[in-house]
Amino acid sequence: MAWTLERLAAELGAELRGGEPGAEIGSVATLDEAGPGQLSFLANPKYRPLLATTRASAVLVAPGTAVDGPAALVVPDPYLAFARAVALLHPEPRPAPGVAPGAHVHPGARLGDGVAVLPGAVVGDRAEVGDRTVLHPNAVVGDGARIGADCVLHPGAIVRERCVLGDRVILQPGAVVGSDGYGYARDGARQVKIPQVGIAVLEDDVEVGANSTIDRAALGETRVGRGTKIDNLVQIAHNVRIGQDCLVVAQVGVSGSSRVGDRVVLAGQAGVVGHIAIGNGCVVGAQSGVGRDLPDGAVVSGSPAFEHKENLRAQAAFKRLPQLRQQVKDLERRLARLESRGETT
Amino acid sequence: MAWTLERLAAELGAELRGGEPGAEIGSVATLDEAGPGQLSFLANPKYRPLLATTRASAVLVAPGTAVDGPAALVVPDPYLAFARAVALLHPEPRPAPGVAPGAHVHPGARLGDGVAVLPGAVVGDRAEVGDRTVLHPNAVVGDGARIGADCVLHPGAIVRERCVLGDRVILQPGAVVGSDGYGYARDGARQVKIPQVGIAVLEDDVEVGANSTIDRAALGETRVGRGTKIDNLVQIAHNVRIGQDCLVVAQVGVSGSSRVGDRVVLAGQAGVVGHIAIGNGCVVGAQSGVGRDLPDGAVVSGSPAFEHKENLRAQAAFKRLPQLRQQVKDLERRLARLESRGETT
Amino acid sequence: MAWTLERLAAELGAELRGGEPGAEIGSVATLDEAGPGQLSFLANPKYRPLLATTRASAVLVAPGTAVDGPAALVVPDPYLAFARAVALLHPEPRPAPGVAPGAHVHPGARLGDGVAVLPGAVVGDRAEVGDRTVLHPNAVVGDGARIGADCVLHPGAIVRERCVLGDRVILQPGAVVGSDGYGYARDGARQVKIPQVGIAVLEDDVEVGANSTIDRAALGETRVGRGTKIDNLVQIAHNVRIGQDCLVVAQVGVSGSSRVGDRVVLAGQAGVVGHIAIGNGCVVGAQSGVGRDLPDGAVVSGSPAFEHKENLRAQAAFKRLPQLRQQVKDLERRLARLESRGETT
Repeated sequence: MAWTLERLAAELGAELRGGEPGAEIGSVATLDEAGPGQLSFLANPKYRPLLATTRASAVLVAPGTAVDGPAALVVPDPYLAFARAVALLHPEPRPAPGVAPGAHVHPGARLGDGVAVLPGAVVGDRAEVGDRTVLHPNAVVGDGARIGADCVLHPGAIVRERCVLGDRVILQPGAVVGSDGYGYARDGARQVKIPQVGIAVLEDDVEVGANSTIDRAALGETRVGRGTKIDNLVQIAHNVRIGQDCLVVAQVGVSGSSRVGDRVVLAGQAGVVGHIAIGNGCVVGAQSGVGRDLPDGAVVSGSPAFEHKENLRAQAAFKRLPQLRQQVKDLERRLARLESRGETT
Repeated sequence: MAWTLERLAAELGAELRGGEPGAEIGSVATLDEAGPGQLSFLANPKYRPLLATTRASAVLVAPGTAVDGPAALVVPDPYLAFARAVALLHPEPRPAPGVAPGAHVHPGARLGDGVAVLPGAVVGDRAEVGDRTVLHPNAVVGDGARIGADCVLHPGAIVRERCVLGDRVILQPGAVVGSDGYGYARDGARQVKIPQVGIAVLEDDVEVGANSTIDRAALGETRVGRGTKIDNLVQIAHNVRIGQDCLVVAQVGVSGSSRVGDRVVLAGQAGVVGHIAIGNGCVVGAQSGVGRDLPDGAVVSGSPAFEHKENLRAQAAFKRLPQLRQQVKDLERRLARLESRGETT
Repeated sequence: MAWTLERLAAELGAELRGGEPGAEIGSVATLDEAGPGQLSFLANPKYRPLLATTRASAVLVAPGTAVDGPAALVVPDPYLAFARAVALLHPEPRPAPGVAPGAHVHPGARLGDGVAVLPGAVVGDRAEVGDRTVLHPNAVVGDGARIGADCVLHPGAIVRERCVLGDRVILQPGAVVGSDGYGYARDGARQVKIPQVGIAVLEDDVEVGANSTIDRAALGETRVGRGTKIDNLVQIAHNVRIGQDCLVVAQVGVSGSSRVGDRVVLAGQAGVVGHIAIGNGCVVGAQSGVGRDLPDGAVVSGSPAFEHKENLRAQAAFKRLPQLRQQVKDLERRLARLESRGETT
């Protein structure tokens, strides 16, 4: 669907400078790849030179940006406006509502209005699926699970029995919600499984990446707070609680019963041990390992993790460790010489 | 189903102190969340204060623990007894046996008594599935695979052709057994695939976490020993052999052809290089990288991993590296002064 | 199918020394496990002693290797010849072409000649599947996706809408191609999803391991080059470009928009940050974290990664850090003594 510049500006709350108000915009593209009829954006200042050469018809820019050629759509936050423009110009095609042939909905399940259940998707007994939710091929909703409205379960995503998803939750392909937590009690050398009878809860607007896993609780619940975004191949263990609006980047692991505050960033491949608390607004660097509680606002890195700025200094010194050893050796030699001189005097 | 305290005590081999023998217990909960009619437990001494405030009707405790209020069920190992109590009080609902509509069982497959094959599950030609095993929606058993009795394949779990599972094996959702090992031979710059014609074998009582992957062998077999428990998103490469009763925590990777002994603990996100041997009873710390053979009982950490106690000392020193560099610089300055003084005298 | 030694030698371009040209070889095995009628190989010199004791009927060896007992098939590269011999002696059984009952092919999809779609597999509208490609149970091909000829999608592998696979691409079980990239714009504390409207492209001869995830681009495409082999549980983020003939080992993560050259090796659990470029022929060690551009041919390790040889020296010094601290302390003590002596003279 094509939008006119004028209508797009109104929808995005942008000020239109230059260009024909009635010119049509059909899609978005990056500054270097865009052509006529396309909208681009400048968010990162390092791409500013591309403004001079882009063939885009219009560009989202911040106030005070000189644009010569394309029409300018001036907005306070070009990246955020870009996110909205993509949604406007590239609306996701919605599958037709209804239960497709080859889908399996238990007669005891309850589907809301406009739900689409595609071939191979399975909905269990007593499960509830909210209005307009889409279950893509081979997605599975277990017995007694409750899925909110406007959710998308991509192909092969799995929600096990009794787990709960809020509204507008997105599960990327192969994401698993409600797998058993990893809990065993020793009986001599043997491990006896502790049945995991709790559930997992994802609040509104949570997104879970492809093949990520969120375990159900041993007792009670594992919970991911509203608006938190989880990337691919992330492991969230049983009884973990993650706050709101967090970013949990790919391949992160959070161990059992840990608490993560609001607006926390866990960068790629970081790990968090069990039974600790991470405060609000913390940032944990990539590949870091958090082994103890963190106060609000802490910025840490390293494995084990400590204050990020200190870690940067320690890392810099680490690279020069062989020289440091050599310096100490030299000092020892020189000192021994001095000492022997002292003795002989 | 509710149990009386008396019957529960008998079943768990517990001594009942206080409480009505005929009082009914319906479920389990943690000390702080339990209420009337619920059973709790005290395993970790740090939660002992909660004994005074819990509203549980009964508590599993070790001998010599003073309990005031709830009935006490005295057992040698409260955590182990708790594991058993959960299984008694929260029996997993078993799906009705039979091949559900929408399941696909090849006519050449052989199903034992009481097997349940749920919608979307697929069983291949010449596959065998043991008595009472449950194949949840969209689980796949490949041609010629053999699954033991009382196994559970959760939704989307996959066992590829000819692989073998013992009895009571549990595959969490999305777990993969028998994917091709990662084996290539160079032909100039190009990689030529070495067909992986071996299999993967999971012995009795093995559990595999959600979206974990266990590759089939190039030749011969990959094998995971009896009772070993594998967490989520773990990678076990081709021709690896893992012993009995091991704990392999989330996101661990074990590279090709390595041998892991019995009762080994590989903590979260640890890695093991290929073609090495890890002895019985070893413990490998989280995020560690094991690059060489480990003798029985070794406790290691770090990447690369070495003796854990030494690593703790090195880590402590690492944090103070910038100061150490400063100390050495100061020494050099002071020494130079001394040396020059020596020359002038 | 059994092959004669003579025919096998011809097919592999090997020189046959010893043995009956008409002797039949039925399968391959390692030197220590092989028996009569089996072919083995010697690629790693450390196994040379096994040549004296193997019960194999024939052995692939390099020129100049003395073989006493089994027939020798002399080839320039025994490992490569072994890869080919496995393919000859253990041809993978091909499922019968056609759409099996319980498979779901949209009427708007286009299947090539000899395509096999097994039970539970789903092919979307306007999808194209090339000749002789096999879609195993519960594999999913999204709307408008294009799959080349002679591909294999193992059980549960998923290709989302509009993504493109070349010829002879193999997806192991649970592999995901085309999941949404991890892209959000902040709106105050909240994260607004940036619709990921690009695609993912895998060129000819790419293989993707079990439960690995390859995100579609935000705009444009994510691309994996011809012949690159990706192991299990690997994460490739949106807009990444990986060159040809790379080896990406298990549990590696490559962050958004990074470029990886040709013939690069990323060892197990390594991570690459976003928006950087790794040159051709680079080698990144296991568990390393690459945080900046690498020139062609760089060999790095560590987290953060730097030149591998330097890192080895720094690691060695790291282990002896506590001693180094002690040495410095001793120096300080001795120096203080010297200094005070100087003052008193």
